[in-house]
Amino acid sequence: MHHVRFRDPAGSIREGTYDSETDTVAFAGEEYALDDPAIDVLPPTEPTKIVCIGRNYADHADELGNEVPDRPLLFLKPPNALASHGDEITVPAGKDRIDWEAEIAVVIGEQCKDVDAADAMDVVAGFTCMNDVSNRDDQNQEQNWVRGKAFDGAAPLGPVLATPDEVPDDASVELRVNGETKQSSDRAHLMFDVPTLIEEITTYLTLEAGDVISTGTPEGVGALSDGDTVAVEVEGVGTLEHDVRVP
Amino acid sequence: MHHVRFRDPAGSIREGTYDSETDTVAFAGEEYALDDPAIDVLPPTEPTKIVCIGRNYADHADELGNEVPDRPLLFLKPPNALASHGDEITVPAGKDRIDWEAEIAVVIGEQCKDVDAADAMDVVAGFTCMNDVSNRDDQNQEQNWVRGKAFDGAAPLGPVLATPDEVPDDASVELRVNGETKQSSDRAHLMFDVPTLIEEITTYLTLEAGDVISTGTPEGVGALSDGDTVAVEVEGVGTLEHDVRVP
Repeated sequence: MHHVRFRDPAGSIREGTYDSETDTVAFAGEEYALDDPAIDVLPPTEPTKIVCIGRNYADHADELGNEVPDRPLLFLKPPNALASHGDEITVPAGKDRIDWEAEIAVVIGEQCKDVDAADAMDVVAGFTCMNDVSNRDDQNQEQNWVRGKAFDGAAPLGPVLATPDEVPDDASVELRVNGETKQSSDRAHLMFDVPTLIEEITTYLTLEAGDVISTGTPEGVGALSDGDTVAVEVEGVGTLEHDVRVP
Repeated sequence: MHHVRFRDPAGSIREGTYDSETDTVAFAGEEYALDDPAIDVLPPTEPTKIVCIGRNYADHADELGNEVPDRPLLFLKPPNALASHGDEITVPAGKDRIDWEAEIAVVIGEQCKDVDAADAMDVVAGFTCMNDVSNRDDQNQEQNWVRGKAFDGAAPLGPVLATPDEVPDDASVELRVNGETKQSSDRAHLMFDVPTLIEEITTYLTLEAGDVISTGTPEGVGALSDGDTVAVEVEGVGTLEHDVRVP
C-alpha cells in the first residue's frame, strides 16, 4: 500500500491511498492528481523527531574526506525542519554552500524502546523519501549540527509512505537536480542496515509512532542554487520534489 | 504568576496556580500539596524540541577543559528526553559517568522566527528548572550528542513555570545532590544572555509555543550515583526534584 497525507479542497487533512500508475491520491471516493493545486500535499507523518544517520554509505564518507564510523553517527532534526512535496524551501541566507542529500527514510509505526534488530521490522510502518538539506558553512564549524542541519526547510519529506512489502531490500535511491541525476545508489549499500539502526537508536531513545529515521546519503552531494528543482526518488516508494530559494 | 501542570486525581490534565509560600497547586477551587501522591506533576510545557546551550558559563567550560565558544554552542533534546518533578529517571546502563547539570530553562510563549534580541523577551512565557543529564561516556565519543544528551530521562523539567516578572536578572541557580550543594551560580553569569540566545536560534529555527531553551550549566558538574536525589532550584521559580536509578 501507498499512502499520501494531504489537505483537501475543504481544508480537511486526509490520509489518502496513492496510485503510482496514475499518480493520483484517493480518499472517500474523491480522487486528485498528486500535483493538483486544489490539494496541499503534506509530509506523510508528523514526527516528534527525525533521527538522521551520517556517513552510512562508504562512498559518501570518502567524498567528504571522513572516516567510516564504527557505529552509526546520529544527529537530530526537530519538526521545524519539515517541508512537503511541492514546497519551495528557503535556505539560510548568506551561506557559501548548502547541499542536497537524498535519503531513504523509515517511518516508525509504534512507540518502542530497546528493540532487537531481529524484531525491528515489526515497528516499521514504511518508507518515504527525504532530502537531508545541509548547510555546510555552519556544519563544519559546530560541534552539534543544529545551524547546519536543523534549520527550517532542512527536511523535505514525502510525499508517499510505502509499506515495507513495497520496497525491495536493494531499493534504489536517486536524486536529480533540474532533471540531471546527481546521486544514485541503493539500500543494499547502507553500512548499518535499518534493523541495526533501530536497535542502536532505541537503546537510548524511545521512538514514537510517526517518528522518522533517515538512513544517510550516498556519494554525489553538491551545492543547491537559487531556483533549483530537486527530485528524490526511492524505488517502490515514489518521488519527492521541491524547489529551492537561496535568499 | 507561577503555574504547575499536573494530572488531577480523576486523570484530567490541569494547569494550576502554584503558591510557593504553601507549596500547593490550585485549580478550580481544588488545592493539593505539590508532592501529594494523589496528583501527578508533569513538565510545565510540552515542547516540540529543547534547544540546549553548551559552555555558557566560563567556569564550567574551564572545568571540562573546553574553550569558551565565540557563538552559542547549540544542541538538541527531543521530547522523549523529558521527565517530571518527582520522577525517578533510569539512566543508560553500563556507563562510567553520567553527570548532573543544573540549568535555567526558558519557555517560549509564541511561534517565532527571526526575533531581534531587543524584542526577544516578548516571546518568553517564563522560566523553569532543568537538569541537563549528560552521559559523558558517549558524549565524548560522538560528533552530535545524541546518545550523550537525548536519551530517555535526560531532561527532567519543571515543576513550576514562573512568568518573567518573577525571576530577577541575576536569579540564582543551585543544584543539590542528597541535600549537598554542588552547583551555585546565577543568571547574570550567562555568557550569552537569553535575548541573544533567542535571536541566534531563531535566525535558523522556528520556535513553537511551549518550546524550551536551556541556558547552560555553571561549574560544579559531577557524576550521579544510584539512589541519588537531585534538586535544581532557580530563584523566583522553585525547585525541581527527581531521583536517579543507575541500572
